[in-house]
Amino acid sequence: MIKAGIIGSTGYAGQELVRILVGHRETQIKWFGSRSYIDKKYSEVYRNMFQIIENNCLDDNMEELAKQVDVIFTATPQGLCSSLVSEEILSKVKVIDLSADYRIKDVKIYEEWYKLKHQSPQFIGEAVYGLCEINRNDIKNARLVANPGCYPTCSTLSIYPLIKEGLIDLNSIIIDAKSGTSGAGRGAKIDNLYCEVNENIKAYGVTVHRHTPEIEEQLSYAANKEIKINFTPHLVPMNRGILITAYASLSKDVSYEQMKAVYDKYYQNEKFVRVLDKDICPETKWVEGSNYVDVNFKIDPRTNRVIMMGAMDNLVKGAAGQAVQNMNLMFGLKESMGLDLVPMFP
Amino acid sequence: MIKAGIIGSTGYAGQELVRILVGHRETQIKWFGSRSYIDKKYSEVYRNMFQIIENNCLDDNMEELAKQVDVIFTATPQGLCSSLVSEEILSKVKVIDLSADYRIKDVKIYEEWYKLKHQSPQFIGEAVYGLCEINRNDIKNARLVANPGCYPTCSTLSIYPLIKEGLIDLNSIIIDAKSGTSGAGRGAKIDNLYCEVNENIKAYGVTVHRHTPEIEEQLSYAANKEIKINFTPHLVPMNRGILITAYASLSKDVSYEQMKAVYDKYYQNEKFVRVLDKDICPETKWVEGSNYVDVNFKIDPRTNRVIMMGAMDNLVKGAAGQAVQNMNLMFGLKESMGLDLVPMFP
Amino acid sequence: MIKAGIIGSTGYAGQELVRILVGHRETQIKWFGSRSYIDKKYSEVYRNMFQIIENNCLDDNMEELAKQVDVIFTATPQGLCSSLVSEEILSKVKVIDLSADYRIKDVKIYEEWYKLKHQSPQFIGEAVYGLCEINRNDIKNARLVANPGCYPTCSTLSIYPLIKEGLIDLNSIIIDAKSGTSGAGRGAKIDNLYCEVNENIKAYGVTVHRHTPEIEEQLSYAANKEIKINFTPHLVPMNRGILITAYASLSKDVSYEQMKAVYDKYYQNEKFVRVLDKDICPETKWVEGSNYVDVNFKIDPRTNRVIMMGAMDNLVKGAAGQAVQNMNLMFGLKESMGLDLVPMFP
Amino acid sequence: MIKAGIIGSTGYAGQELVRILVGHRETQIKWFGSRSYIDKKYSEVYRNMFQIIENNCLDDNMEELAKQVDVIFTATPQGLCSSLVSEEILSKVKVIDLSADYRIKDVKIYEEWYKLKHQSPQFIGEAVYGLCEINRNDIKNARLVANPGCYPTCSTLSIYPLIKEGLIDLNSIIIDAKSGTSGAGRGAKIDNLYCEVNENIKAYGVTVHRHTPEIEEQLSYAANKEIKINFTPHLVPMNRGILITAYASLSKDVSYEQMKAVYDKYYQNEKFVRVLDKDICPETKWVEGSNYVDVNFKIDPRTNRVIMMGAMDNLVKGAAGQAVQNMNLMFGLKESMGLDLVPMFP
Repeated sequence: MIKAGIIGSTGYAGQELVRILVGHRETQIKWFGSRSYIDKKYSEVYRNMFQIIENNCLDDNMEELAKQVDVIFTATPQGLCSSLVSEEILSKVKVIDLSADYRIKDVKIYEEWYKLKHQSPQFIGEAVYGLCEINRNDIKNARLVANPGCYPTCSTLSIYPLIKEGLIDLNSIIIDAKSGTSGAGRGAKIDNLYCEVNENIKAYGVTVHRHTPEIEEQLSYAANKEIKINFTPHLVPMNRGILITAYASLSKDVSYEQMKAVYDKYYQNEKFVRVLDKDICPETKWVEGSNYVDVNFKIDPRTNRVIMMGAMDNLVKGAAGQAVQNMNLMFGLKESMGLDLVPMFP
Repeated sequence: MIKAGIIGSTGYAGQELVRILVGHRETQIKWFGSRSYIDKKYSEVYRNMFQIIENNCLDDNMEELAKQVDVIFTATPQGLCSSLVSEEILSKVKVIDLSADYRIKDVKIYEEWYKLKHQSPQFIGEAVYGLCEINRNDIKNARLVANPGCYPTCSTLSIYPLIKEGLIDLNSIIIDAKSGTSGAGRGAKIDNLYCEVNENIKAYGVTVHRHTPEIEEQLSYAANKEIKINFTPHLVPMNRGILITAYASLSKDVSYEQMKAVYDKYYQNEKFVRVLDKDICPETKWVEGSNYVDVNFKIDPRTNRVIMMGAMDNLVKGAAGQAVQNMNLMFGLKESMGLDLVPMFP
Repeated sequence: MIKAGIIGSTGYAGQELVRILVGHRETQIKWFGSRSYIDKKYSEVYRNMFQIIENNCLDDNMEELAKQVDVIFTATPQGLCSSLVSEEILSKVKVIDLSADYRIKDVKIYEEWYKLKHQSPQFIGEAVYGLCEINRNDIKNARLVANPGCYPTCSTLSIYPLIKEGLIDLNSIIIDAKSGTSGAGRGAKIDNLYCEVNENIKAYGVTVHRHTPEIEEQLSYAANKEIKINFTPHLVPMNRGILITAYASLSKDVSYEQMKAVYDKYYQNEKFVRVLDKDICPETKWVEGSNYVDVNFKIDPRTNRVIMMGAMDNLVKGAAGQAVQNMNLMFGLKESMGLDLVPMFP
Repeated sequence: MIKAGIIGSTGYAGQELVRILVGHRETQIKWFGSRSYIDKKYSEVYRNMFQIIENNCLDDNMEELAKQVDVIFTATPQGLCSSLVSEEILSKVKVIDLSADYRIKDVKIYEEWYKLKHQSPQFIGEAVYGLCEINRNDIKNARLVANPGCYPTCSTLSIYPLIKEGLIDLNSIIIDAKSGTSGAGRGAKIDNLYCEVNENIKAYGVTVHRHTPEIEEQLSYAANKEIKINFTPHLVPMNRGILITAYASLSKDVSYEQMKAVYDKYYQNEKFVRVLDKDICPETKWVEGSNYVDVNFKIDPRTNRVIMMGAMDNLVKGAAGQAVQNMNLMFGLKESMGLDLVPMFP
C-alpha cells in the first residue's frame, strides 16, 4: 500500500486527486495539506467527501511529510514546490509536482513567463516531464515528475503524431483552446463568479499565456527543432473540460487514411488516447470525469491545412488523473490502476 | 458473474446503468436493448462509451433475453415492462423494472394517474418496491423489483423517519421538488432544448405529477395510515440532481437533538443516506455521480414546522444506482458493490 | 429632465438601474457612486457600458449629491442609507432606498433579523413601502421610498389577492422560493464562484432569511391580522430570475373561475402583473430583462390547498425596475416610462 | 408608420425581430407568419409576449403579404425566400431576407455549399449584402437586402480593416468561432437538448460550414482578390453570443498604435462597432441583447501574427438587429432607431 501526501489538497485539482485516490486500491492518503484550512475537517471544505474522508487538513510541511509517506503530490501555486524540494526530500520520497515549476527545462524561459525566480534550478534537469504516453520509460525511474499542464497535455497529444511524422509545417501551428472554469481555480475572484462566467465566452492571456512555452518545448522535442506557436485560451461556461482546435499547414500531400494511420501508430495501444472515427469531432462531455483524451483531425484540401482537435477533462487527464497515472508508473503498478473511470454523461 | 440485459439502454437512465455496470466486477452486460437504435453500435449512440462498449444495440425481446441473462433491467416508458413480463420469464430471470409499472399496489390508482391500462396486474402483488433502505429483506427474495421513482426515493427517505416516529402532522406534508433536466429523458422535444431550459426555472405537473401517488403510498406505509400530500416538481437548468424541500407541522414538541437522533436511528448504518451536520443544507452537487442521498432538517419554532431537505443524483440513487443496489441484494452480493462512487465536484 | 444620483452603482442592482435609466427619456444620471471604484471609469467596471457611459465613479457623498440631483437611489448594503439620510437631505431630494433599511415598520424586528442598530429610526414612519401595485397613491407623495426586496415583491404580489379576499387560511402559508445568482451580489466569495453554483441547487437561510419578516408584514397588512409564514429561498444556477411557489390551505370552497376572477380584480389594470392563462405555470425566462411579474395558481381539490406561483426578474421588478417605477410615480411621470422592456427570450 | 410582415416569426431570429420591432416607434408588425403555428396565438408560442402581442400566427403567403405591408422580413430556412420572391412582389414591397439565399453572388457556390437549387437566381445580382457598416449606401436604395449570416457579420467586421489596409497575409487567415446555442434554431433535435449541450463544447461543420464561402466573398471584396480561409465554428453552452478569434500573419511591420488607428479609421464613427481599449478582450456578455459588435486585436511579435477578436449577440447584430438596421436605412430612418439597446449584464 502506497502512502500518499497531498500538498494543496483543497484546490480543485487537489480535491480531484483525493476523489481518484479514494478509489485507488493500492494507495492511502495520509496527509491532506492545505495552508488555508489547517485543522479544519477536509469534508467541511469539500462536502462531497462527507463520511468518506474523516481527516483534518494539515500544514504544508514537506520535510515531515517526507518521513511519513511514499509519494508527495504538490497541487500548489507556481513557485511553492520548487521552494520546498531538497535532495534530502527526494532521497526519501517521490514527488509529483502538479505546478509548472519543473516542466520547462530552460530556467530563463520559466522565469520570464512566470515572473518568478526559480528556487531550486538544480533539480530541473532531473525532473521528468510526466506526459505518460510520450515519456513512459523515463517516468518509471523518476524521483521527481513534473506533471504536465492541462492545455499542454491536450495540445501536445493532439498534434504530436503529425509532427513526429513530418506531416505539418512547423511554422504554421496555431492552437485555439477552450477551457471550463475549474481551470481558473477556487480563488474568490469577481472574474470567476457565476454571473460573470455564465452566458459568456472570452479569450484571455492572448499571446502571453504561460502554457505557451511548455507546449512549444514539447512540440520542439517531437520536431527535433525549435517551434513557435500561437496559443489562445478561452474561458467557457462549464465546470470541466478542455477542447483544443489546432491548425497547421500540410507539408506534404496526405490522405485521410494515411493520416489516420499515423494517429493509430502512436495511439492504438494507448488506453487513454482515443482516436475517434472519421468526421466525429471530440466533445468535452464524452470524456468528463475520465482520464481519456479524445482526438481527431480533418484535412481541408481547399486551404491545404489540417484541423486537429482534442478533448479532455482538465482536472483528470489534465491534472489529477495524469498524476495518478505517473504514480502508477513510478511505483511499478498497472498504469491504469484507479483510472478506469467511465466518462459521465450527461 | 451475473449476466445482465438492459431493455431501454439508450435512455439517460439506461446509459447510466451501463456506466455503473461497467465498473461492477461481478456483472457483465450481455444485451443492450434499444428499439430506436437496433444494430447501431452502442458507442455511436453514447460516444463516451467509445472503446469501452463494443456491442451493438438489440431489439427488446424479453423472451430471448430471459434465456441468455440472469437479470433484466427495464429502463423503458411506462407500460412496456408490464406488457412483456410473464410467469415464464419470471421463472427464469430476475427483473428490475425502472419504470412505474409495479410501484403502485392499487392498480386503479396506477391507471388513473398514468392513463394506461395495466397489462399484467397479476404481478403487482408480488413485485417488491425496491427502496433498499426500507425494504431490504423483501428485496433479497424478490423475482420482480419495482425500482422507485427519482422523486419518491428522495422524498421518502427525507421524510420517513419523522413519520415513523410520529413527529409530524400527517395532513400537513408539502413537498417542493427541483430536478435537473436529465429527468425529462432524451426525447427530442422543444421544451427540453438547451435554449428553453437554460436561464430558466418553472414548476410543472402541478397537482397532477405521477410521482404523487407513489410518494403517498410509501409515506402511508410508514404512517400506517393514508396520507395525502402536495407535490410540486420544478425543472432546473442543470443536467443531474434532485433536491426536495419538504414542509410539515410538528405534532409534538421536539428539539434539534431529538430529531437528529431520530434520523440517526434510521440512517446511521446506511451507507447511502448521509444525515448532514447541523445547519448544513444538502446540495445536489455534493452527491453528483454517486449513490448518496444527503438529508437534513431545520425546525422553525416560529411556525411550529419542520423543513426537511434531501439531495440526490436522479440518475444514480434515483434510477440506475438504486437498480444496481437492488440487484446486489437480489443476488446476495455486497449491497454497495459497484456503487463506491465518490461524488464528483465541481 | 430629472437628475438622478446612484449610490452603489457598481453592484448588480445598481448597474441594472443604470441600464434602465439610460433608456429613460426624462432622466439623466449625474452621479455614479461607488466606494470601491472611486475615480475609475464606470465602463471599466461594467464593460457593457463602453461608449455608453463616459463618467467616472464617485464617492458616496449624499450631502453633496443632494445639492446636485433630484433623486438619489441607494443600492447599497443594509445600514448604509439609514446612516446617511437626514432631514436636510430629504428636504432637498427624493430618496429611493433599494436596501432594507426602511422596509420594516417595527424597528425591533429590523434590528433582530438584520443584526444591525438602525441609524435613523425617525424616518421609518414616513418611508413608503414602494410596492407600486399596492401603495401607488402613497408613493406619489413620498420623499423617502423603501424599495421592496426581490423575494417580497414576487411573494406578496402572488399571494396578496387571495388574502385580501379571504380565500386562504392565514396560518398555512408556505413560500418556497428560487433565485438566480445575481441576487447574491457581486462580492468575491467562494460560494458564488461559477464552479460552486453551476450544476447545483441548494436551499439557504432556512427559517432565518431576512426577507421573511418583510413578507410577513406586507401579507399582514392585506389580512389586517398578523401572519407568520415559512419562507425558504434556494440558489439556482442561472443569472437572473426569481420563482416563488407558495402553498396555502383554502378557507372556503372556490372554483378556478372564482379564483381567477379574484386575481383579475386586482391585476387586470396592472401593466406589470400578468395573470397567466389556466394551467400555464410562470417561467422566469418569460420575464427576463423586463419589469413583469407573471403569476398563476392551481387548486388541488385532493388536499384542499392552492399552489400560487410567481416569476420575475430579480434585478428589474425585484430591484431596479421597481425603483424606476417608484421614481415615475414620485415625479408624476407615466408609471411605465422607461420600463417598456420586452422580455428577452431565449 | 412602416407596416412590417415577418415570414418565419416563430424561429428564434424571428422572435427576436418581434422583440426589437415592438420597441421601434416607426414600425408596426402586421403579419406574424409561421407555417408551424398557423392560427395559434403568437403569445402561446412565445409566452414572453403575453399581453404584448395579441395576434395569431398566419401562413407564409408572400403575395398577400406584399399587398398589406411595406417590408417583409424572411427568417426562414434556406431556399424558401428565393422560391417566393418575384418581380411583382419586389415592385410592391421591400424584402429583407435573413436566410442565405441572396448573400452569395456566385450561384454555383451557393448551390454547392447549400446543396440546393436556387429558385430565383435573377435577383441575386440586385440583392444588396446588408452589412450596414460596409454597404450603407447601396442598402439605402435596395429593394432586396440579403441580411448577413451571424458568423460572417462578426468575422468580416473583425478582419475587414486589416485587409483593406493591406496589413495581413491574405493566405493566412484562420477563423475559430464560438456560438451560443440559439444559433442552432428551435428545432426539436437530440443534439440541441439541454443535457447534450450543457457542460460541453465541440467543433462542428469543420471545413464544410456554409458560412465559409460567405465570409470568403466579403473578405475578397475588401482585398480585391480571392481569399480562402479556414473557418471552424464551435457550439458553446450559452443561449446567445458569438465570439470569433481570428489569426493572420502580418504582411508588414506594424505597431499597436498603428493598427489601432486602422481600426479607428473604419469604426470611430460607427455606433455599433466598438473598438475596445488596449489588451481588453471582447466578451459576448458585454453585448448581450444589443446590436453592438466589440472588436479588438493583439499583435504577437514572437510569431509575427495578429489575433483579431470580435463578440456579438448572434440574434441581434447577427440577425434581427442588423435586419432592423437595414430596414432603417432602406426607409430613410435614423440608422439606430429601435436599436438603442443597452447590453444586459449579467
